[in-house]
Amino acid sequence: METTRLDQQMNFLLEVDKLKRVDRQTLIVDGTRPENSAEHSWHIALMGLLLAEHIDQPQPLDLLKVVKMMLVHDIIEIDAGDVFAYDEDEEREEREKQAGRRIFGLLPQDQAEELYQLWIEFEERQTPEACYAASLDRLLPLVQNYLTGGYTWVKYHIPEEKVRRRNQVIIESSHDLWQYAQSIIDQAKEKGYFEK
Amino acid sequence: METTRLDQQMNFLLEVDKLKRVDRQTLIVDGTRPENSAEHSWHIALMGLLLAEHIDQPQPLDLLKVVKMMLVHDIIEIDAGDVFAYDEDEEREEREKQAGRRIFGLLPQDQAEELYQLWIEFEERQTPEACYAASLDRLLPLVQNYLTGGYTWVKYHIPEEKVRRRNQVIIESSHDLWQYAQSIIDQAKEKGYFEK
Repeated sequence: METTRLDQQMNFLLEVDKLKRVDRQTLIVDGTRPENSAEHSWHIALMGLLLAEHIDQPQPLDLLKVVKMMLVHDIIEIDAGDVFAYDEDEEREEREKQAGRRIFGLLPQDQAEELYQLWIEFEERQTPEACYAASLDRLLPLVQNYLTGGYTWVKYHIPEEKVRRRNQVIIESSHDLWQYAQSIIDQAKEKGYFEK
Repeated sequence: METTRLDQQMNFLLEVDKLKRVDRQTLIVDGTRPENSAEHSWHIALMGLLLAEHIDQPQPLDLLKVVKMMLVHDIIEIDAGDVFAYDEDEEREEREKQAGRRIFGLLPQDQAEELYQLWIEFEERQTPEACYAASLDRLLPLVQNYLTGGYTWVKYHIPEEKVRRRNQVIIESSHDLWQYAQSIIDQAKEKGYFEK
């Protein structure tokens, strides 16, 4: 039997169900369990729709592109795993690209290419859409961490300086959001969540 | 201190984190646990981006609207709970509207109004975008159920006829997707997943 475009699309959609089993370091806000990458992707996509007015950029963003990017930005973790924000790993990039080629490659070629490129664009942060998406991908876990007693910072002994540096990406898209992020970091510091 | 738009938006975004704790009847594809409504929303939003070519409608859909709709379509469940597809409940509509007013009402008024209206549009299924979104909201759980041994059909003794009727909504947007759904139902019948 011939494999139709719809078959390929459904194969991809069923494969990415596995993202629901990829746990992140961050806890959900009530602190009861780790967040998974599928629900995180939903959360920042919704965030992307709502916070666009805070971007410094004078031209309006392509919001559909932002949302697409956010919906697919973690899919490679199905093969490559979630990488902890404060880890360094040189082989990571190649492993993630392989994952992207395999997983997006389940789709019809035009869609595979589109989503792979969107993911690369997100990773490279060279467009306003990618900068904005990357900012929210920092900001939301920052707030989640703050609300769960500084969970990952405490667990991995992360110093304040490292958190400020990592979140500085946010300035590239919005001074308002950066100010908000800084106020969260200030409060986290007051509460003693960072390594001294 | 004055509550800014950003404060309101963040309050909403943190409130909807609770959708990650709303379990659905459907299992995730590997069968290990119930799916929650946040990861389900991610999944059908992604599906919405990929399957639009199968719609019968000659005009192109407003895809951004479709994706927005899908990202918010279950948020009212935070207060109103997940309603099992085959349950009837007369008070449900009022309970859900109250939930919508409270939760979307956390946002600045313009955004609260926009998302509430999008959710109502989704529920009423009177626009091509809403019909398409509702179709995928049927089709994906259908396939998930099939792949998990007919889990909810077996558990609640659902007959084939009821499943065909419920999924007929799909015809309103796409004959291709309806054909696909029917082939899944046929296979589920062969495997004996439906109540006789």
